[in-house]
Amino acid sequence: MKSNASLKEIAGILKAAQSILVFTHTNPDGDALGSAAALCRALRKMGKDAWAVFTDHIPEYLHFIDDEYFTWDIDLIKNQDVSICLDCSDYDRFPTLIDKFNDGKTKLCVDHHATADGFGDYYYVDSDAAATCELAYMLMVEMGAEIDKTIAESIYAGINTDTGSFRYSNATSQTHRITAELMEYGIDHTSINVKLYQTIGLAKMRIQAASLDKAEFLYDGKVALGFVTDEMLKKASATVDDADDNVDMLRNIEGVEMAVFLKEKGDNVKVSMRSKSYANVNEIAASLGGGGHAKAAGCTLEMSMEDAIETMKKALEDYWQN
Amino acid sequence: MKSNASLKEIAGILKAAQSILVFTHTNPDGDALGSAAALCRALRKMGKDAWAVFTDHIPEYLHFIDDEYFTWDIDLIKNQDVSICLDCSDYDRFPTLIDKFNDGKTKLCVDHHATADGFGDYYYVDSDAAATCELAYMLMVEMGAEIDKTIAESIYAGINTDTGSFRYSNATSQTHRITAELMEYGIDHTSINVKLYQTIGLAKMRIQAASLDKAEFLYDGKVALGFVTDEMLKKASATVDDADDNVDMLRNIEGVEMAVFLKEKGDNVKVSMRSKSYANVNEIAASLGGGGHAKAAGCTLEMSMEDAIETMKKALEDYWQN
Repeated sequence: MKSNASLKEIAGILKAAQSILVFTHTNPDGDALGSAAALCRALRKMGKDAWAVFTDHIPEYLHFIDDEYFTWDIDLIKNQDVSICLDCSDYDRFPTLIDKFNDGKTKLCVDHHATADGFGDYYYVDSDAAATCELAYMLMVEMGAEIDKTIAESIYAGINTDTGSFRYSNATSQTHRITAELMEYGIDHTSINVKLYQTIGLAKMRIQAASLDKAEFLYDGKVALGFVTDEMLKKASATVDDADDNVDMLRNIEGVEMAVFLKEKGDNVKVSMRSKSYANVNEIAASLGGGGHAKAAGCTLEMSMEDAIETMKKALEDYWQN
Repeated sequence: MKSNASLKEIAGILKAAQSILVFTHTNPDGDALGSAAALCRALRKMGKDAWAVFTDHIPEYLHFIDDEYFTWDIDLIKNQDVSICLDCSDYDRFPTLIDKFNDGKTKLCVDHHATADGFGDYYYVDSDAAATCELAYMLMVEMGAEIDKTIAESIYAGINTDTGSFRYSNATSQTHRITAELMEYGIDHTSINVKLYQTIGLAKMRIQAASLDKAEFLYDGKVALGFVTDEMLKKASATVDDADDNVDMLRNIEGVEMAVFLKEKGDNVKVSMRSKSYANVNEIAASLGGGGHAKAAGCTLEMSMEDAIETMKKALEDYWQN
């Protein structure tokens, strides 16, 4: 654990401050937004001036998260007592707000990413936590904050999304213990789950179906290779983002160990790769100038879709026949 | 709570017995199999002769559940001290084994179904429990059973499947608290989740895609109406069971409040209906001689697919235009 402070110390600094700005990474996800929303509300309930500052938009599917203390006005509070960065401990992941973060008299960071080094004056990084929301919850408990249903729902949203509905390997005993406590605040978890998992755009479904139709299954069905072209997107009235989960769809097929999905993006082809149990997709991604981890990796190929498919087939052959 | 005994009393009866047969409902699901597997193993570890008796087959996707103490040999144990029925308290739901159940000197029942009345000499029915596996876990704790990783995995499988990966409204604080305890036995929850959610047959995916392609969206997209014919199944190399989740797929589309899915089965058409938030599909099902609850109901129409689609459109018109 790469921390130079305990959650108790960080709680103490927040309690002593009056104005606090919360930051998180670009393209904020459920964990980033949930932890920021919860902490801001808890601080407000303690009489403090707390805002979470964003430059990016909130993705549509996360609009249900409490945004009462979110602002896009970078000058709303000046010379804040404390800047705290949540779910991010890498300057590269919030380039547009670094100067504002550094304006804080004291700079804090709470994160759960394994690659995190921690930054600021005091940081707490725990990669055993499934989500930053777990840490934000423990931080609020340390602060003696008055947790309410809204705060509990924000934390639940972050834990749920970062663990893929408690399915991923990062979910632990602690994850479920905290969730048990959140349920006791009367959260409407059913409604959150409807918003997260029962609100799939029709265009997204149509582009999944079209991609499945064109997918090839190689090496006795162990490898699924799919793609989406601009023409396919147009026909389904879909955007390229609607194809983001297609690689997971292919990986979820019985017998498939490795899924490779190619998306046309301008003159390039973006390749996403996933493995289910034992294959190492990072090896393939790295050989093509990309990267990631063993179970999720990607690369960009500067060529036509036709050539990119051939390139991937060759790379798959090198991997599976060696 | 319709119980005539506590879990403690039921635990006491099991502890005093030597031979125990476990029963559950026909078409056993994850909760039925998980609770039966866990209880049998716990009883075996206490030196007892325990078996779970089945007449049905175990569905493919649940083959990972510990089946060491499952038997299809109804005569393996005769004149058992105790019969215990799990996840079922309705004679109609295990018609093939009622006589064998009644052979037990003492008959017990543990169930969580809201419609359960309880049967046998001693029964414990708790409809606040998300799964019978929650109750089986508490029963084992009452028995002082030595819970191990295998038992914990069986219980986890049942809780996970009955709560739809903790998403359904039945998941409670207790559900997560028990799951937190299960995780402490070192269960491989990732592998269970891969088997449950990342092992979807290709034929099933293809029939979903084909059904989506043919689906109609009515009443400004609030209603999705889909169907599958024998011809479509043939083309996708799918069976009619592969279309079981298609009604959920349609319900999960953004803006859809009600999904109706029709399946050709011989000369009849089986209709499944789901609602997302507020619509009552039971009203429609009941008007056509079927039934269910507000959010999930169904009926059988003895007519051709073409006529069935017209019948459903008329019923939807009655519902949505009144």
